[in-house]
Amino acid sequence: MAHPAGEGAAQGAFLRACRREPCGATPVWLMRQAGRYLKEYRELRERVPFKELCRDPALAAEVTVAAARRIGADAAILFSDILLILEPMGMGLEYSKGDGPVLGNPLRAAGDVDRLREAEPGSLGFVFEAVRQIRRALPAEVPLIGFAGAPFTLASYMIEGGGSRDFALTKEFMYRDPAAWSALMERLVRALAPYLNGQIEAGAQAVQLFDSWVGCLGPADYREFVLPHTKALVRGLRPGAPVIHFGTGTASLLEAMREAGGDVIGLDFRVELGEAWRRLGEVAVQGNLDPAALLGDRRLIRRRAEEILRQAGGRPGHIFNLGHGVLPATPVDNVRFLVDLVHAWKG
Amino acid sequence: MAHPAGEGAAQGAFLRACRREPCGATPVWLMRQAGRYLKEYRELRERVPFKELCRDPALAAEVTVAAARRIGADAAILFSDILLILEPMGMGLEYSKGDGPVLGNPLRAAGDVDRLREAEPGSLGFVFEAVRQIRRALPAEVPLIGFAGAPFTLASYMIEGGGSRDFALTKEFMYRDPAAWSALMERLVRALAPYLNGQIEAGAQAVQLFDSWVGCLGPADYREFVLPHTKALVRGLRPGAPVIHFGTGTASLLEAMREAGGDVIGLDFRVELGEAWRRLGEVAVQGNLDPAALLGDRRLIRRRAEEILRQAGGRPGHIFNLGHGVLPATPVDNVRFLVDLVHAWKG
Repeated sequence: MAHPAGEGAAQGAFLRACRREPCGATPVWLMRQAGRYLKEYRELRERVPFKELCRDPALAAEVTVAAARRIGADAAILFSDILLILEPMGMGLEYSKGDGPVLGNPLRAAGDVDRLREAEPGSLGFVFEAVRQIRRALPAEVPLIGFAGAPFTLASYMIEGGGSRDFALTKEFMYRDPAAWSALMERLVRALAPYLNGQIEAGAQAVQLFDSWVGCLGPADYREFVLPHTKALVRGLRPGAPVIHFGTGTASLLEAMREAGGDVIGLDFRVELGEAWRRLGEVAVQGNLDPAALLGDRRLIRRRAEEILRQAGGRPGHIFNLGHGVLPATPVDNVRFLVDLVHAWKG
Repeated sequence: MAHPAGEGAAQGAFLRACRREPCGATPVWLMRQAGRYLKEYRELRERVPFKELCRDPALAAEVTVAAARRIGADAAILFSDILLILEPMGMGLEYSKGDGPVLGNPLRAAGDVDRLREAEPGSLGFVFEAVRQIRRALPAEVPLIGFAGAPFTLASYMIEGGGSRDFALTKEFMYRDPAAWSALMERLVRALAPYLNGQIEAGAQAVQLFDSWVGCLGPADYREFVLPHTKALVRGLRPGAPVIHFGTGTASLLEAMREAGGDVIGLDFRVELGEAWRRLGEVAVQGNLDPAALLGDRRLIRRRAEEILRQAGGRPGHIFNLGHGVLPATPVDNVRFLVDLVHAWKG
């Protein structure tokens, strides 16, 4: 059975682009491509709570593979969540309806960091099993991307107890007790490296680090409190699987993020891809259409997508993606339209 | 009676800095300097609801003047709210506890824009009266800053019905019906220009435009959907009172914001002031300490504040401020410490 991604798109284009090798048509996948904008996903979620879905390898595999096939993406991304790793470290974790995730026992002092547990190797076995099942179900030419939250973003959830607008508690913690902050970041790196390596061993051919909230920091804070830890994490990963390093609101952080590591820097939609790539230099880039553009009409989608493709200029090393996850209100036909448009682009 | 700002700080330094004239010590004021971090303010708010406080010229004047005096700021800023202008335009407006403002009848279609009213000239008279009372109560050497929300930020509140994380409804509106979007922005400009000019006539010696949420847009969207309207607004303002043009998350928008207008560009804390100023060229800048730094210890506050002062390098045209409003948990002694440190800075 032919996978849509095999038609039109160059086979293996995604992995070649990660390595900045020429690959014919620009490869494309979308963050949250397995998500609520898909009717099938919404129906499944009516029956199965989010955490249960993440913990069920067969269901997680089904969701992952179906989404990549549905939109004709050049890569699949593991259906999972960045916060799952916090449970075996001793954090309470609930996904409340509408309000997003809630960590029941947020960290507020150095002592709270000391009380964290080292995650047991087997505690996230269901993720590795999902990776194996996905890899078996996916066509050979569609690579699978594993992922994890980056240390800063996970630390911010642990301290805030959930999402935040200003990250005041996180920054206060970081500023007031730099030693406890370092200890927390080091613990996270110790948990994350084997977690990502486990995904790679199980069959993930690339991994993405989501430093989703790191854009709340200025460059000086990033260099002092984040960069060394993210760098240690990237260095601890098995060679061979390209690393995509993504964050939002990172316009002032790009050079420092590159220094921290990654074969591909993921750009959010607030930067112009051409200028960002010039600043970054010899590294691949991923991005960066505003997810909200997919709520517009096709003329707008075409115009904005072509601006990005023109800025990339056909240079090897561009993976087309959104600048953040697909929005729930997105019409799936617009997503297909975008994927086809990227594949058909001739420069 | 001597006003603290008269001691140490050069008199009139704020207005001279707006015009990039040499002014001795760097002038400093803080966004939300009259806010919840002040015990007196919290006590007053236990008795008086927010909207009532804004609508009472004598109380608004008291809060404005007391805050500037308390921290020794080089400028006072009118105590008011950017959303008040939306009521006379026909929007329902409530400030719910904890959840922020709620606009009861958000705009969802072109017809909703047509139904908006033109704000009657007298409807915000209480603001102009507050300006007059503040001007009479302030020492002559402490200038008063008036303000308004910029058209994009107000439009986003009108469409979302309150705050938003992704501004999906706003962008969908803008992309799907550019004509209705322009009509809305033009209506806002027609309301905002006389509103700001009224503040200037009543005694405000500078005005700040808060485009607080414009950083949710990429540069192409900003240029297409925002810049022409903000430019029209700035051009419609009475000459003589410097205009400060501020937004957050604007690292990629600075050049375009400057093109839109303003004598001073307000920087948020996510950019390095030195590099941002080089990009902006011949214009004054305001900023840009992370408000969360004031939750740290004095060593951290000193370090971060001096980094900013060093980057400004004593060039005429720098007004020290935070990169966003003072956080409620901020110790007032840290604010005083910061103001004194800026005034004492010798480069």
